[in-house]
Amino acid sequence: MKINRYVDISTIDREAKKDYIDRHSAFIIAENTAKVGEKFKVKVKVGDEYKHPDDFDHFIAWVQLWDGENMLAQANFTAGAMGSQPENLEVDFYVVPKKNMKLISMAFCTKHGLWQSDEHLVEIL
Amino acid sequence: MKINRYVDISTIDREAKKDYIDRHSAFIIAENTAKVGEKFKVKVKVGDEYKHPDDFDHFIAWVQLWDGENMLAQANFTAGAMGSQPENLEVDFYVVPKKNMKLISMAFCTKHGLWQSDEHLVEIL
Amino acid sequence: MKINRYVDISTIDREAKKDYIDRHSAFIIAENTAKVGEKFKVKVKVGDEYKHPDDFDHFIAWVQLWDGENMLAQANFTAGAMGSQPENLEVDFYVVPKKNMKLISMAFCTKHGLWQSDEHLVEIL
Amino acid sequence: MKINRYVDISTIDREAKKDYIDRHSAFIIAENTAKVGEKFKVKVKVGDEYKHPDDFDHFIAWVQLWDGENMLAQANFTAGAMGSQPENLEVDFYVVPKKNMKLISMAFCTKHGLWQSDEHLVEIL
Repeated sequence: MKINRYVDISTIDREAKKDYIDRHSAFIIAENTAKVGEKFKVKVKVGDEYKHPDDFDHFIAWVQLWDGENMLAQANFTAGAMGSQPENLEVDFYVVPKKNMKLISMAFCTKHGLWQSDEHLVEIL
Repeated sequence: MKINRYVDISTIDREAKKDYIDRHSAFIIAENTAKVGEKFKVKVKVGDEYKHPDDFDHFIAWVQLWDGENMLAQANFTAGAMGSQPENLEVDFYVVPKKNMKLISMAFCTKHGLWQSDEHLVEIL
Repeated sequence: MKINRYVDISTIDREAKKDYIDRHSAFIIAENTAKVGEKFKVKVKVGDEYKHPDDFDHFIAWVQLWDGENMLAQANFTAGAMGSQPENLEVDFYVVPKKNMKLISMAFCTKHGLWQSDEHLVEIL
Repeated sequence: MKINRYVDISTIDREAKKDYIDRHSAFIIAENTAKVGEKFKVKVKVGDEYKHPDDFDHFIAWVQLWDGENMLAQANFTAGAMGSQPENLEVDFYVVPKKNMKLISMAFCTKHGLWQSDEHLVEIL
């Protein structure tokens, strides 16, 4: 299973490669601390500076949210949901932590496979 | 296929029935107008005044977002993601409309089946 | 939520309508009796006499298998999995019944919405 | 992302470890050759000699079928579909190949994470 990972695009010269890596990468946007038993928002966004196509034969079909080895949620999308235009796909999950979390997101592009986000640690206060 | 629907709980006398209906019903929370080609946030929330259990044998396993007959997205959840406590499951989808939308959400409870939200119309300005 | 249902196509005159209804309808192919605690095969097939396209903008994206109000399984497909040619999508689920079952299948076409199979009753011997 | 892989259990001494590895591993059972444009059956089975529990808090929630970097299908299961007893979860997918395939299956256990099958090569005659 080939899993692609984010590479800091400021270290990459070629514009096409920056675009390719950035637009496929999943990013987790969330606070770094949470309270036990309280709803905690986790945004998963695909692409930061570059947008991904939403064409019928080339789109982001799903993203998953993991806490370590446990999958919390998966959101599947139909081509066209992003208006059939380049976009940064987003979804906000809400989870209720019981202990510290090590969040990871996976994104699947129908042409360019599976992409893993960096880890996002959440400490319980 | 039995599809359960929301009933205005203020018209219901019995507390247990109010709770049963409300905590299973899917609600769409979104603006009523949108702009073509711009990202539009759609919150799907399960339960309004009452919370649903998140037990291993009884939880909300998925919600779907439909625009008329076209499914836009489906989010699946693992039991425990809501902290194994009663909660109002939530997820925010972002879609990019091309024309007026007739949003509907479906929620599936592993014990009490399929629940359909009211329609939420979105007019394109 | 509009749910389309199978209509016996021998009662329909117009060829295009026969084709439209048949190729979208989900069919459950399984024995009518089962043994408690033994694995039981349930084939879900979309279309009987007519095949459905597998185009990027028009394909069967998922099928669900229900026992009454309880969903047992859902299989999602990527466009192209059927070779990008007209086909009868199939998937064999294996379930282990505890009591009599009332099986229903739903199929979702990305252009023509949701289709419900006839009920298939399974009696436990 | 930790991905567990099958290890030949005949090389493992401890019975509990044999059981742990075998019952979580995904196996692809299919022919090694196929014809272009013809439906091709691919069985995904979880566990070979040992069975996995189907408890509410511990079950196989989904399996995916990949051809290299392209996901062909994902089947999700509800706890209890295997009769709430130890079983080898199975699902038969049908795909139509266009060229040689490198099939891989992933299985997700709600307690013990993600498991990857060995590769299964399919040559087009």
